[in-house]
Amino acid sequence: MNDSLLVRLPQGEDLLAALVGVCLEHNVTKGQVSLIGALSRAVLGYYPQDTREYVTRTLAEGTEILSGLGNVSLKDGQPCVHLHLTLLTRDFTVTGGHALPGCVLFAGEACITPIEGPRLHRSHDPATGLPLWDLTGM
Amino acid sequence: MNDSLLVRLPQGEDLLAALVGVCLEHNVTKGQVSLIGALSRAVLGYYPQDTREYVTRTLAEGTEILSGLGNVSLKDGQPCVHLHLTLLTRDFTVTGGHALPGCVLFAGEACITPIEGPRLHRSHDPATGLPLWDLTGM
Amino acid sequence: MNDSLLVRLPQGEDLLAALVGVCLEHNVTKGQVSLIGALSRAVLGYYPQDTREYVTRTLAEGTEILSGLGNVSLKDGQPCVHLHLTLLTRDFTVTGGHALPGCVLFAGEACITPIEGPRLHRSHDPATGLPLWDLTGM
Repeated sequence: MNDSLLVRLPQGEDLLAALVGVCLEHNVTKGQVSLIGALSRAVLGYYPQDTREYVTRTLAEGTEILSGLGNVSLKDGQPCVHLHLTLLTRDFTVTGGHALPGCVLFAGEACITPIEGPRLHRSHDPATGLPLWDLTGM
Repeated sequence: MNDSLLVRLPQGEDLLAALVGVCLEHNVTKGQVSLIGALSRAVLGYYPQDTREYVTRTLAEGTEILSGLGNVSLKDGQPCVHLHLTLLTRDFTVTGGHALPGCVLFAGEACITPIEGPRLHRSHDPATGLPLWDLTGM
Repeated sequence: MNDSLLVRLPQGEDLLAALVGVCLEHNVTKGQVSLIGALSRAVLGYYPQDTREYVTRTLAEGTEILSGLGNVSLKDGQPCVHLHLTLLTRDFTVTGGHALPGCVLFAGEACITPIEGPRLHRSHDPATGLPLWDLTGM
């Protein structure tokens, strides 16, 4: 049997903050995240590989979270949730992106799986411009 | 090593019924679900956060299941699979939604991970109008 | 605690080859795969259920991997990764498909969960025309 955490996320709260809160409460510093549910507001990022500055889009409408997929590792010593979202809008079209602060939960059911082994730390990767895992620990 | 169930789902059967069947056969009352495959028919829901009545859409065509993500918990004492689908149609556009009865499998490969700990029960949540997990057990 | 592998995938390499490489290095013959990240090139398949010949589409542009979901089993005695991708393009539209050789990584964070129990072998399934798991082992 698996010791994953299956948690109901609180309505009205920030998605990333809620997930980090669960990690802090249960001492999860390394793990996998998957979730479904719905957002009342979404803030999404796309990272252009040439200009290397996130483009963001805000959806001020209700969406279904078709998929929230990502992981937990450490950044500046704190649990950091890296999450990508696939969202369904009312007309059954799909959008999504890198989850940014400002995503507001309508309902959320998350599965957080703590993973054993050496901790993973994020730091600036010059080749991509992104905060990736240090290869030292892998 | 992990005791997740990796199962081939039967062609021609109802997706949700097939998943519930696996849960009943293996006594899974709490778990995570992920799957890929293809459907010959899809019945999808979107839940408007204002009107709170599911809008449904039926696709009477073949689609790839890009992602099926969700969980297993109990509703009225029985295993209940809550699943969101991301689907690809022939012209490489993507749609999806809350999986409803009537999704027919062409091929399916599911991973069901039983999770330990207190059982989760769904009941009516007045704040959202949805059958969410009782907070008592969390 | 879970012994899943959380790995950074190498920039510039083929996605499927990189995942198979991790499986070979860690002796994973059966497992679940989930990943997020970004591709600099994507080669995607859609399987029409009538004509039964994969239609492919190549995206020669950067995309976010909103979801990579799939599994590891054996095909011709070697680890085989079956993976479906949901991808976000620069204009926040979403496409995806069955991952084919030729997907080039910009960044990738994968979770590979080894699963215990009898090995799963893929062989030709006449009913669908696809290489599915032998039912003998299930």
